[in-house]
Amino acid sequence: MLGKLNHVAIAVPDLAAAAATYGDVLGAKVSEPQPLPDHGVTVVFIDLGNSKVELLEPLGEDSPIAAFLEKNPAGGMHHVCYEVADILAARDRLVAAGARVLGDGQPKTGAHGKPVLFLHPKDFFGTLIELEQV
Amino acid sequence: MLGKLNHVAIAVPDLAAAAATYGDVLGAKVSEPQPLPDHGVTVVFIDLGNSKVELLEPLGEDSPIAAFLEKNPAGGMHHVCYEVADILAARDRLVAAGARVLGDGQPKTGAHGKPVLFLHPKDFFGTLIELEQV
Repeated sequence: MLGKLNHVAIAVPDLAAAAATYGDVLGAKVSEPQPLPDHGVTVVFIDLGNSKVELLEPLGEDSPIAAFLEKNPAGGMHHVCYEVADILAARDRLVAAGARVLGDGQPKTGAHGKPVLFLHPKDFFGTLIELEQV
Repeated sequence: MLGKLNHVAIAVPDLAAAAATYGDVLGAKVSEPQPLPDHGVTVVFIDLGNSKVELLEPLGEDSPIAAFLEKNPAGGMHHVCYEVADILAARDRLVAAGARVLGDGQPKTGAHGKPVLFLHPKDFFGTLIELEQV
């Protein structure tokens, strides 16, 4: 069921500083910041060739990463996103196995314009998992 | 400088249970567990096609992931590993930029038999970064 590792998301308190560190110090290919108000984050994409890292900074009120940054003020790894071919089939299989899907269980349109779901980290050994239909 | 995303490492308290969840529930391609006594961990590799996840369980005394699991008893994302072409050149560039390399600054032989270094998470927004020469 799990396809490719689409991205690792890292929440940071200061996106400009983090983008500069990844670009200048680590020598990575870093995109311009992209505000995604519907998702409550501003994103910088780091293209690693085979996969990518997304640096996330809170945007607006009620950002979904605000609580994480309160607990981890310096930032940290926030979630891992895996690709699936059929997100509804994936959801049904996971729910049948007893795993919890966050929210109302309906896929939302993710940062890449594709259907996504998030799985409860308590069901996956402390890791927040995003599934994205590709 | 940064090459491909080699792997995401996830520390777990119970490797057999985590491997079963990734294999049976998430439908991922999961390896047999591999004890790596020199690294203080037992590892299960999850092949995602473009990259991989490594599930880590402590092995023996003084495991490098023991303190992490004390703070995160359910488990969690532990580090991200990026490939570099020349680990000594990468190290020298990072040190010149003021970043801290963990340990004595000399590459060690990593879990894949290749030279690796770890970078201080405080210099990279709370993320522990491994560099592996490929």
